[in-house]
Amino acid sequence: MLEELKKQVYEANMLLPKHGLVTFTWGNVSGIDRESGLFAIKPSGVEYDLLTPDDMVIVDLNGNVVEGKYRPSSDTATHVEIYKAFPNVGGVVHTHSSYATSWAQAGRSIPCYGTTHADYYYGEVPCLRCLTGEEIDEAYELNTGRLIVEEFAAMNKDPKAVSAVLCRNHGPFTWGKDAVDAVHSAVVLEEVAKMAYRCELINPKVQPAPQVLQDKHYYRKHGAGAYYGQNGN
Amino acid sequence: MLEELKKQVYEANMLLPKHGLVTFTWGNVSGIDRESGLFAIKPSGVEYDLLTPDDMVIVDLNGNVVEGKYRPSSDTATHVEIYKAFPNVGGVVHTHSSYATSWAQAGRSIPCYGTTHADYYYGEVPCLRCLTGEEIDEAYELNTGRLIVEEFAAMNKDPKAVSAVLCRNHGPFTWGKDAVDAVHSAVVLEEVAKMAYRCELINPKVQPAPQVLQDKHYYRKHGAGAYYGQNGN
Amino acid sequence: MLEELKKQVYEANMLLPKHGLVTFTWGNVSGIDRESGLFAIKPSGVEYDLLTPDDMVIVDLNGNVVEGKYRPSSDTATHVEIYKAFPNVGGVVHTHSSYATSWAQAGRSIPCYGTTHADYYYGEVPCLRCLTGEEIDEAYELNTGRLIVEEFAAMNKDPKAVSAVLCRNHGPFTWGKDAVDAVHSAVVLEEVAKMAYRCELINPKVQPAPQVLQDKHYYRKHGAGAYYGQNGN
Amino acid sequence: MLEELKKQVYEANMLLPKHGLVTFTWGNVSGIDRESGLFAIKPSGVEYDLLTPDDMVIVDLNGNVVEGKYRPSSDTATHVEIYKAFPNVGGVVHTHSSYATSWAQAGRSIPCYGTTHADYYYGEVPCLRCLTGEEIDEAYELNTGRLIVEEFAAMNKDPKAVSAVLCRNHGPFTWGKDAVDAVHSAVVLEEVAKMAYRCELINPKVQPAPQVLQDKHYYRKHGAGAYYGQNGN
Repeated sequence: MLEELKKQVYEANMLLPKHGLVTFTWGNVSGIDRESGLFAIKPSGVEYDLLTPDDMVIVDLNGNVVEGKYRPSSDTATHVEIYKAFPNVGGVVHTHSSYATSWAQAGRSIPCYGTTHADYYYGEVPCLRCLTGEEIDEAYELNTGRLIVEEFAAMNKDPKAVSAVLCRNHGPFTWGKDAVDAVHSAVVLEEVAKMAYRCELINPKVQPAPQVLQDKHYYRKHGAGAYYGQNGN
Repeated sequence: MLEELKKQVYEANMLLPKHGLVTFTWGNVSGIDRESGLFAIKPSGVEYDLLTPDDMVIVDLNGNVVEGKYRPSSDTATHVEIYKAFPNVGGVVHTHSSYATSWAQAGRSIPCYGTTHADYYYGEVPCLRCLTGEEIDEAYELNTGRLIVEEFAAMNKDPKAVSAVLCRNHGPFTWGKDAVDAVHSAVVLEEVAKMAYRCELINPKVQPAPQVLQDKHYYRKHGAGAYYGQNGN
Repeated sequence: MLEELKKQVYEANMLLPKHGLVTFTWGNVSGIDRESGLFAIKPSGVEYDLLTPDDMVIVDLNGNVVEGKYRPSSDTATHVEIYKAFPNVGGVVHTHSSYATSWAQAGRSIPCYGTTHADYYYGEVPCLRCLTGEEIDEAYELNTGRLIVEEFAAMNKDPKAVSAVLCRNHGPFTWGKDAVDAVHSAVVLEEVAKMAYRCELINPKVQPAPQVLQDKHYYRKHGAGAYYGQNGN
Repeated sequence: MLEELKKQVYEANMLLPKHGLVTFTWGNVSGIDRESGLFAIKPSGVEYDLLTPDDMVIVDLNGNVVEGKYRPSSDTATHVEIYKAFPNVGGVVHTHSSYATSWAQAGRSIPCYGTTHADYYYGEVPCLRCLTGEEIDEAYELNTGRLIVEEFAAMNKDPKAVSAVLCRNHGPFTWGKDAVDAVHSAVVLEEVAKMAYRCELINPKVQPAPQVLQDKHYYRKHGAGAYYGQNGN
């Protein structure tokens, strides 16, 4: 079932160690087939070295396993909420990548200090509030997903324009049009988090980049007027 | 004698350079056979490139060499104390891994700032007091082990829940159910130390993660209600 | 057309990932043939793994594509301005290399703290002002190039003595006598930016190196009295 | 002439890129044959990739080239002074390794914060004063060597107990009983510099390690009572 998707999701998972984003099994990637409403996701706690495309677990949007010999990632319920609320999302990634997680632990959103950030994310990458004890006890992973969705709505953030979020005291989730694109966002986020960290140490009074520069770089790569790369108009 | 154990301990030692935890010979791993009360440990000052399973030294719980052509690690007496006091421990590791050692030199315990930490260690990873001049002169390595044991008792810390400690001005010791598991803890500790360091630079006023979140992540992976990975219930 | 130049520029581009200066496609190198007034430049948004010498785009000094199946780098207009104003420049590089970009985001010039810097750059590596909204809207990449040229003139900086600049909130441009030499400067700049960052954290009150030491190291490698290397006199 | 020495010095030079201590040609290693009073040293500005044992230059203790097709390292006169003043030294290394150079640029000696440092260096690794304009103009490299020798005498430092120094605004020199041992010290210094830097950021009020612990670790590895490694007594 969904052999092509499982292969894509497997390959996207293998990009995490390649890009240095995971230690041991601390990460997971999923990708969805919107037609059937089913997604493939990494099994929980299985080492990357041992993973095969066939190990991917097929899950439906109620979080039920449809196929697979393993238990799916413990973060599966978070993936479900993101897929349900953000219809353009085709892939979701969770890592504990070092710099992004440091910002999440620090409880701070990542300001847009330059064009590397502006090329991919429109405005800051938000760090959410912590879940309440009640939310944690009731359904931790599901409520993590709900909080992402609710806060994006409350902040009026377009998940296409900001494909990353920091879960406080935890780590990042990123997404994209498919599993590989979601990993791409995870790599960019780590790089952006690293440079913002150093930037503040170099100049503790630094301010975000001027809005006009943020707009220029974001719209140079996105939307109707994009002219970066080979696929613009 | 204990060929299988020597091989395991050799392989666990070789994981230290693989994970970037050692420079030159600055680290050692041991693993114990509880039945015979004998443990295998890396020889002192031998380069990792030249190590073979046969070079492992077999030592008893009085610290006496039972078999081996080399002198055992100079930290052997510390390993002995840990094995004697913590009956569930099957492997012990000492490194000078860069971030964990920086915390040990700074004389600070590593606070639990997030779920990466909480997934493995329940509460902060303690940094012990320095040994007194008398303790150092009398029996440095043995008293290092005794201090670990005494302070864990005084803090009422369960060595299964916190499988790592920082020896002040020195570096980390970690342990686990066997030699490889103890190395696993050494890798996690280094990652946790790195992120806590950056986290404090990003937000100098950061507070530890809420206790309820720490509990959630620790018990998601440990104990009767664990549901992370493939071996939970 | 210009097969040899395309090959050189291709190889110089491939040095960027080799030296760890780029993530994904975030960089570009060009090299000029002064006789014909044509330069070869990396195509926009093409991955380094897929690049071939034949993919290089040939552009004239009006910024018009003369040959090539791809669209040239989106930063082409900046390269044009540098070639037009600095007649000794044979190659230009743009990256988002991590430390140099952190300084650019912080809006600070890199002071000369030591001989590593002085060996290559005479005095600080300047960080320019941000472009105005008008300049950005009108012709962003072209005005980036013009600002580099104008500010070097205003600061009375010789582009041969300082072959690097930080574009505020953006990242570095470097140049050299050919494409490979321009990459060389990009590598040096990243190293210099890294050490200046750490240097200020080690001693927040640090002052630039004494002028006499800066002079000694710069002129040991450059100009009539140079005696470093095998080609001096 | 001195074929064995040239081979050893070549191999020691090649350890610098292997340990990540050099960028481009920014480093040099020499080794001396005390009987003949001749030493072999890396040629100036030649890339490590292209180096062969035969390229090593043979120099006498007056700094005159005795054999070799290349010009010797521009720092040769500094090596000469060290060999002349420190009779037990058999090898000398100069690098711009990143962390040690950052301390040199910051103008600060590296305090002994822990046992990693104490295992190799007895007390702090000193950062010297800057040379005067006169000293620089007169004979820069020779006076660099003289300053090292004079300040070690003035501080009453034993070059066997502290085999490393930071030249202010410049970078480290290290030495050892032969060329490889001098590289060993360069690797240790970089690691010690890295951890001292992080240590101070983790605890800005950190104090050096207690003297009794410094003594213990230094004498555990050095002198009559050493018991670390396989060659002690």
